[in-house]
Amino acid sequence: MDLIKGVESKVLKYNMDDRGGLMEIVRNDDSFFEKFGQTYISNTRPGVVKAFHMHKIQTDLFVCLKGEIRLVLFNTEGEINEFFMGERNPLLVKIPPNIYHGWKCISAEESMVLNVCSEVYNYDKPDEYRVRPHGYVTGFTWDTIDR
Amino acid sequence: MDLIKGVESKVLKYNMDDRGGLMEIVRNDDSFFEKFGQTYISNTRPGVVKAFHMHKIQTDLFVCLKGEIRLVLFNTEGEINEFFMGERNPLLVKIPPNIYHGWKCISAEESMVLNVCSEVYNYDKPDEYRVRPHGYVTGFTWDTIDR
Repeated sequence: MDLIKGVESKVLKYNMDDRGGLMEIVRNDDSFFEKFGQTYISNTRPGVVKAFHMHKIQTDLFVCLKGEIRLVLFNTEGEINEFFMGERNPLLVKIPPNIYHGWKCISAEESMVLNVCSEVYNYDKPDEYRVRPHGYVTGFTWDTIDR
Repeated sequence: MDLIKGVESKVLKYNMDDRGGLMEIVRNDDSFFEKFGQTYISNTRPGVVKAFHMHKIQTDLFVCLKGEIRLVLFNTEGEINEFFMGERNPLLVKIPPNIYHGWKCISAEESMVLNVCSEVYNYDKPDEYRVRPHGYVTGFTWDTIDR
């Protein structure tokens, strides 16, 4: 898959031991890191789609810490990227401004997505521009097609 | 409980809806926020103690995202602070340098602690100073005493 310009992904390493484990997520010396705005978690119940929106200023760094999600990105040139990520595939995905994105929780358990984003959320003037979750992108469906 | 000098805690708010929920953790405009070094998760199996260590430079911001922990802090003046935190008590605890800290996973499921700390981990020269988990602090035990 060719990544949309500005999109990056990093495979995270879970260091397991008898006590549990430890996983580094983002360091300020990571090449893709720009700026710390805030961090939050977004939980999604099984089968639910949270999509689509984009930011004009903010860069997102997504990691799925619990369950599994299908993360979908697209731009106005019609390019689409998909990532299947979660506990069995620990991945960080960087989404720069102006790229629409959203996800579906595809695991039987609720998913937990951590975002380390470049800006703080502005409650008065959110940097969020929405399009509808279904039917907006030609030829794309959130449904799982048997194959 | 009087907090040890420099220690702060913030009650986090989980905004639940039909799709799942969202919880802000740390914003760069939070009064207690100083600097972003990195973020990582540390998972702990039920009953396991990860303790004690302190940093000479680093400030930690701990949140327990899954399961529940007993977080214990102490300083060389003999002051002790304890926090019971996790899914049913979403709390952020700020631990400045020179305060020993550690936790026990007290939930039946594995706990997941997120740390948003002020420095990157230096693999060659870690800013970590350890003391033993049991018997170091007079009168303190990790055991649960029936009461």
